[in-house]
Amino acid sequence: MGNVLVQYYSQTGRTAEMAELVAKGAASVPGIEVRLRTIEESTIDDLFWCDGLALGAPTHLGSIPWRVKQWWDEATDDAWMQIDGKFGCAFSSAGGLGGGPEIACLGLLTMLMNYGLLVFGITDYVAPLRTLHYGAALPGRPKTQAEKDICERLGRRLAEWVSFYVDGVEQYHPRHATYPRRG
Amino acid sequence: MGNVLVQYYSQTGRTAEMAELVAKGAASVPGIEVRLRTIEESTIDDLFWCDGLALGAPTHLGSIPWRVKQWWDEATDDAWMQIDGKFGCAFSSAGGLGGGPEIACLGLLTMLMNYGLLVFGITDYVAPLRTLHYGAALPGRPKTQAEKDICERLGRRLAEWVSFYVDGVEQYHPRHATYPRRG
Amino acid sequence: MGNVLVQYYSQTGRTAEMAELVAKGAASVPGIEVRLRTIEESTIDDLFWCDGLALGAPTHLGSIPWRVKQWWDEATDDAWMQIDGKFGCAFSSAGGLGGGPEIACLGLLTMLMNYGLLVFGITDYVAPLRTLHYGAALPGRPKTQAEKDICERLGRRLAEWVSFYVDGVEQYHPRHATYPRRG
Amino acid sequence: MGNVLVQYYSQTGRTAEMAELVAKGAASVPGIEVRLRTIEESTIDDLFWCDGLALGAPTHLGSIPWRVKQWWDEATDDAWMQIDGKFGCAFSSAGGLGGGPEIACLGLLTMLMNYGLLVFGITDYVAPLRTLHYGAALPGRPKTQAEKDICERLGRRLAEWVSFYVDGVEQYHPRHATYPRRG
Repeated sequence: MGNVLVQYYSQTGRTAEMAELVAKGAASVPGIEVRLRTIEESTIDDLFWCDGLALGAPTHLGSIPWRVKQWWDEATDDAWMQIDGKFGCAFSSAGGLGGGPEIACLGLLTMLMNYGLLVFGITDYVAPLRTLHYGAALPGRPKTQAEKDICERLGRRLAEWVSFYVDGVEQYHPRHATYPRRG
Repeated sequence: MGNVLVQYYSQTGRTAEMAELVAKGAASVPGIEVRLRTIEESTIDDLFWCDGLALGAPTHLGSIPWRVKQWWDEATDDAWMQIDGKFGCAFSSAGGLGGGPEIACLGLLTMLMNYGLLVFGITDYVAPLRTLHYGAALPGRPKTQAEKDICERLGRRLAEWVSFYVDGVEQYHPRHATYPRRG
Repeated sequence: MGNVLVQYYSQTGRTAEMAELVAKGAASVPGIEVRLRTIEESTIDDLFWCDGLALGAPTHLGSIPWRVKQWWDEATDDAWMQIDGKFGCAFSSAGGLGGGPEIACLGLLTMLMNYGLLVFGITDYVAPLRTLHYGAALPGRPKTQAEKDICERLGRRLAEWVSFYVDGVEQYHPRHATYPRRG
Repeated sequence: MGNVLVQYYSQTGRTAEMAELVAKGAASVPGIEVRLRTIEESTIDDLFWCDGLALGAPTHLGSIPWRVKQWWDEATDDAWMQIDGKFGCAFSSAGGLGGGPEIACLGLLTMLMNYGLLVFGITDYVAPLRTLHYGAALPGRPKTQAEKDICERLGRRLAEWVSFYVDGVEQYHPRHATYPRRG
């Protein structure tokens, strides 16, 4: 039984909305247990518990908000060298299109790479012109169906990798996906 | 009299449309001469000629298309160490939102930093939720007025920096802008 | 039986030296088959064949040399959406310390993320002050023992993830490593 | 008379050593006034005062330490849209070679781009195989002469751009440099 942690920080509620959709997407894969945690309530034990992590934060100055960085900087003593090989992905809500959500996702992934995680983006298009190659990167909150689908797809894919690689369930490899992957 | 080069690569015409708008924005600053060049027709002399460069390309795999990289890789012998201190910015058209145009812009800027250019993004919002903090990063071609404004604003800002810093025209520093900068 | 592909481009022989060491490191995990291929001789079938990929290139202008980008840009039609979930890592030789090998590695990893690969860096130190958090990033060729160890460790870790996740061999998870991981 | 701010954060003293050398390099350009400030003692007024900023921090998880990010996140209300067009560069000390100092520098530069700064790296080699294309990126403290020269060259170049572009002193454009630029 694979475990997925959705850890996020939200000030305005926008990233929280994303996080709930990511968690919903993860829970759509049978056999996956999901924990949804704010950065404030999340513990190192959540990291140890999970097989896959979706980490979300608003885009602040094109990168990781300081409270999220503080959590991870301070986790180094206890968690570094202890969580290599878990699966990781990212999501971010920015103040606007072109305001850096992709770059913030890449920054989150880079931080997770420092912890030895196996990080990924997603090839799928959920609708024409709507994809998530570095994670779910949105301007503002998820408003349209496509934006909601982007968040759910992120969680879904994370759970699929966990199901396939950790639980050994061949059918949840995305090559067997029963949903459209090309928009 | 400051000089602005808009150098771009386009296969489908989408980046070409962006380039024309960038050039239009640059030309809106009095006293600026603008050259609009495809990568195929552009020469090293164009680099030497310009004071500011806007470099544009489609987003291919989240980064610089190989033909653009080839031009710049091969320019190294002649142009490297010769163009330090010129002003540089970037624009890119991707296959979709979340498909990497911001990251491609950052990749273009990183390449220009290797040549010693002074590179920049733009703080302004041209409309609510529409900005260009790493350059003009669009899904597809510029369709809406906001997307067109993003391209024009990029060229405008490049020309403003050239006018202010090279030509010494105080009034074109963006702090004196007569257009709205907060969307 | 897991498969590892070491695909590289080399002009001066420096990245080729790295590639051989990466391949040697990968081959040190029992049950892993290794293919060492230049970008020129490599085919799409090599991508389909492998479970894990180490991609190497010299650092040109802080990013991917155009010949490597050309190969991957042109592979899109055949390989995109076909290789999701394989494991990926990167190595690069730069003209100097501070010349961009880390950033080139990150660029290679970003490109592989576009293809849906699970990419990673390595937490281990092979010696005091010598690590490979984004892949093997060297100035020039691998000269010192530590620099050689960095290349081998990259290949080793790739093969370990393949052995653990694809072949299901628990003992090759790095948490059971019999070599020092903290330098 | 151009003004250069060297703002830094240091826990162990390593980045502080770098900062002093950066400040020394900046002060080597006649007519430049230099302020050396820790992040704790630095104020928004320092940002307004300066024409050029060198921002330094240790590499934590490949990116900006949370205390530095906090300062800049919290500065947004007062400084954002107020400091466009100033010159910016970066320096970072990491736990090891390959541990992310280049990527941390790029992260610092990306953050400054969000504020509209004109950011740059440096083409020069200070010795064979020793350069600073994204800023001064060192493993540990500056120990060798080349590592010290890298820090000084960063400050020097920042002051040169300020002298040339803000004070209008042609002779301090690096094309007139009287020191070797190719190592």
